[in-house]
Amino acid sequence: MTSQATSIEFTLPLWLHEYMQSCESIISLDDRMAFVIKAAERNVIEGTGGPFAAAIFESDSGKLISLGVNLVTAEQASILHAEMVAITLAQKKLGTYDLGGAGLQQHELVSSTEPCAMCFGAIPWSGLRRVVTGARDEDARQIGFDEGPKPEDWRSELSRRQIEVVTDINRDEARQVLINYRSQGGKIYNSREAG
Amino acid sequence: MTSQATSIEFTLPLWLHEYMQSCESIISLDDRMAFVIKAAERNVIEGTGGPFAAAIFESDSGKLISLGVNLVTAEQASILHAEMVAITLAQKKLGTYDLGGAGLQQHELVSSTEPCAMCFGAIPWSGLRRVVTGARDEDARQIGFDEGPKPEDWRSELSRRQIEVVTDINRDEARQVLINYRSQGGKIYNSREAG
Repeated sequence: MTSQATSIEFTLPLWLHEYMQSCESIISLDDRMAFVIKAAERNVIEGTGGPFAAAIFESDSGKLISLGVNLVTAEQASILHAEMVAITLAQKKLGTYDLGGAGLQQHELVSSTEPCAMCFGAIPWSGLRRVVTGARDEDARQIGFDEGPKPEDWRSELSRRQIEVVTDINRDEARQVLINYRSQGGKIYNSREAG
Repeated sequence: MTSQATSIEFTLPLWLHEYMQSCESIISLDDRMAFVIKAAERNVIEGTGGPFAAAIFESDSGKLISLGVNLVTAEQASILHAEMVAITLAQKKLGTYDLGGAGLQQHELVSSTEPCAMCFGAIPWSGLRRVVTGARDEDARQIGFDEGPKPEDWRSELSRRQIEVVTDINRDEARQVLINYRSQGGKIYNSREAG
């Protein structure tokens, strides 16, 4: 007989909880991004995962709803990109799979790097109204990360779904985190390493 | 201060564990798909989620590694498509984010419907070597599910990454599960219901 788990559990880094508590709300987009970039940096320093972070804010009030970091290697789960963690934590917190549902504030994802193909595909399902990014996908590719088979016109695909896209916020700082990761010999954890 | 969870936990339906135990390995692709389609059907009957299921098998031996069903509404998490659940359970079980890693058997995803944009993007990160599908994405769209901004040539995008794609296995039976779900008034849980 084949065993199957009865639940799926992921442990979040302890520092994430503490770092999140340092913030209640952030008004400007630049400051929201700075907060997220610092989390990406911290994820590397603490050795809890790749150089990526993402947070969900209420767009108007700037209230911080959730913060995710990349946990692929820490939790041995390839779906655990920072964006997926942030989306899932926000949905758990608000008790709904639809962050754009009736009666809710509008929510936005602030991500230290442009989404890969998977996270791009996850955004329309989440109910998010806006996506704000720092480093470009080409910055991630430059240090060896594969961004996957994402459509060239991913921005317009989201816009067509009434999801606003704002790119290049603090791009230099966000890219620097990627460059530092690479130069410290950080693991580039694309799958299929057996070729 | 803003609270943040210290873990993410998803509960799997009890019947899933029991159903999984009914099977150890399955030789033919048709029979693997029949097993998966039955899980999709069961997910609807039990009221635990949408009409989708996916399993991971060792391609050569047919050994069943994991079984996932759609848990979006049950767990209030938009990322919990059947494929994502199956991939994650397999990686947890084998202790690696890379199902195509050195020293492992080749693994395949058998999914009752072709992947949406998110699951398509997740496949290259998982280490899977083959994807086998039943109903087409147009069959899902026909009952009202949005399949997302997936490239038209998604099959060749996967092939280019040395991931084999086999479609239309038991398509009629797989499609029937979707049609039944719709005719029973099953929830079509695309997000952004507030418009």
